[in-house]
Amino acid sequence: MTKSDTSVTVIGLGLMGQALARAFLKAGHDTTVWNRTPAKADQLVAEGARLASTVGDALKAGSLTILCVTDYPAMFELLGAAAVDLNGKLLISMTSGSSTQAREAAQWAEQRGARYLDAAIMAIPPAIGTAEAVILHSGPQSAFEAHRPTLSALGTVTYLGTDPGLASLYDVAGLAMMWSVLNAWLQGTAMLRTAGVDAATYAPFAQQIAAVVAEWLPGYAEQIDRGAFPAEASALETDVRAMAHLIEESEAVGVNAELPKLIKAMADRSIAAGHGGEQYPVLIEEFGKVNT
Amino acid sequence: MTKSDTSVTVIGLGLMGQALARAFLKAGHDTTVWNRTPAKADQLVAEGARLASTVGDALKAGSLTILCVTDYPAMFELLGAAAVDLNGKLLISMTSGSSTQAREAAQWAEQRGARYLDAAIMAIPPAIGTAEAVILHSGPQSAFEAHRPTLSALGTVTYLGTDPGLASLYDVAGLAMMWSVLNAWLQGTAMLRTAGVDAATYAPFAQQIAAVVAEWLPGYAEQIDRGAFPAEASALETDVRAMAHLIEESEAVGVNAELPKLIKAMADRSIAAGHGGEQYPVLIEEFGKVNT
Ligand SMILES: NC(=O)c1ccc[n+]([C@@H]2O[C@H](COP(=O)([O-])OP(=O)(O)OC[C@H]3O[C@@H](n4cnc5c(N)ncnc54)[C@H](OP(=O)(O)O)[C@@H]3O)[C@@H](O)[C@H]2O)c1
Ligand SMILES: NC(=O)c1ccc[n+]([C@@H]2O[C@H](COP(=O)([O-])OP(=O)(O)OC[C@H]3O[C@@H](n4cnc5c(N)ncnc54)[C@H](OP(=O)(O)O)[C@@H]3O)[C@@H](O)[C@H]2O)c1
Repeated sequence: MTKSDTSVTVIGLGLMGQALARAFLKAGHDTTVWNRTPAKADQLVAEGARLASTVGDALKAGSLTILCVTDYPAMFELLGAAAVDLNGKLLISMTSGSSTQAREAAQWAEQRGARYLDAAIMAIPPAIGTAEAVILHSGPQSAFEAHRPTLSALGTVTYLGTDPGLASLYDVAGLAMMWSVLNAWLQGTAMLRTAGVDAATYAPFAQQIAAVVAEWLPGYAEQIDRGAFPAEASALETDVRAMAHLIEESEAVGVNAELPKLIKAMADRSIAAGHGGEQYPVLIEEFGKVNT
Repeated sequence: MTKSDTSVTVIGLGLMGQALARAFLKAGHDTTVWNRTPAKADQLVAEGARLASTVGDALKAGSLTILCVTDYPAMFELLGAAAVDLNGKLLISMTSGSSTQAREAAQWAEQRGARYLDAAIMAIPPAIGTAEAVILHSGPQSAFEAHRPTLSALGTVTYLGTDPGLASLYDVAGLAMMWSVLNAWLQGTAMLRTAGVDAATYAPFAQQIAAVVAEWLPGYAEQIDRGAFPAEASALETDVRAMAHLIEESEAVGVNAELPKLIKAMADRSIAAGHGGEQYPVLIEEFGKVNT
């Protein structure tokens, strides 16, 4: 690999931090690392990384610094040490946290003269360095764009907007989608297994339905943004009869009906609020509400 | 349109039955119709259908008979009348019902000398006659294959297996997937809207996650069929920490957390049953269980 002219620093060498540092090394970047427990750097040093002896030293070396530790308190603890000078630095936190923590961290860093991007890694360590690893970024756009080529060594990098809380919000929203697709598939698989259909036989059917429904989302989104939900395809009160049927069928074949019941409960509440003649996305009003 | 040599009968001319009869007419089939309230046939007769005066007459006319009425009791009522001879007939019920009702109807029809296919329409009436209308069939395969070309006038027709209950089971399983994708998208949309992101901006992201996760299903299905769930990508106890985070983030931004809580409750139960070190599809054991 040819050496790249962008030097990077990675702070935190757990499972994920090591994968990040390794991907930068492989892409030819001068890579400086720091970890509370220095021994975790040994392998990376053998692969060409430089181990800094202090956080302050580590920060001086890179034109950008990735932080990947357990949580935000750990990040504040190591960056807040007296000798650490953040002035003029670009910090990119890949530590998981909430949108509130990300916004607080951005403010904290900016007060110390640093620029701050918040990132969320939607991947496991072995995927880092491949296109499969999606890494979401939010914060000042110019900082992201200036370092996009460098960050691309880690995977598919995306920019979401200036609010530093966005990466974290998109991340959990994406996880909600992931678990929902998996759970719906498990619900169907459990039902079909009662009729002797194996999981592999049912899976392509579930896959196709998920893909087709996913294509409806942009169109349904327009209804939400307009705040108007005409029943172009089907009305909620028609859907709810089929939901009752899903519950009955689950119970009849002896399968857990909690997910079907939650689906119906949300729709019932929307109908009770007067939306029975409107289309499914009107349920945004129920999802946007805290259930008391 | 050229006349096709297969004559069909459609019994039940509600919104869906009319759409079915119209699609057969458009494809050039000799189409006989019957409805309890005969006036609903007027428009179809103007378009070329023949109105039978009794159910028995209607059955005699077609080489296959589609039944599309409100529910199974209505179907039994009209077919059970003394003058109706089912012997040698092929009945295809497109009436919605449970897998148990489908199996009972098949037995009932076979006892009267008829062959019976159970079908489930995954479409709304305006889609009938286009490839978008998916119609699932189950029952004797030879009966389906013999009439596949005729049935194709209605949309994309699929054969699932000999158990007449399969069409109904796949139908509700598919609906569970549909509502789950929509709900997960609404959950994410509600969260992102608190940060000023509109639904149209978020939708393509949700769409992509759903499509990617759908591609995992065949691989995950193999774990279920093998009954072995090694944590190749991630262990359930790692997932559950991110689930807690989804709940916290939903609550922090003031959005309904019922769906996130159900996701975590299912995983918590599986961990309590000793599966924390295994991979997500091990949850099939929770979905397959009735919650008491
Ligand atoms: N692993 C994944 O699949 C994955 C996926 C997406 C996101 N993430 C996120 O990435 C971050 C790191 O995950 P990981 O898997 O690398 O975790 P990990 O293997 O447990 O490593 C944790 C790292 O944080 C450091 N640390 C913890 N407390 C510290 C403190 N007070 N001061 C200094 N350093 C401290 C640890 O240092 P020591 O070595 O000295 O203990 C270690 O380097 C987490 O926020 C995680 O949610 C992980
Ligand atoms: N519409 C959809 O979007 C849709 C989608 C998928 C599946 N389906 C299923 O298709 C079936 C029909 O739906 P639809 O929308 O056409 O309903 P619909 O418009 O309410 O029509 C109901 C039909 O059933 C007949 N009927 C009811 N009880 C009867 C009885 N005791 N004897 C004889 N005929 C009787 C009605 O006859 P009269 O005209 O004399 O009342 C009418 O023809 C239902 O099982 C439905 O779940 C519908």
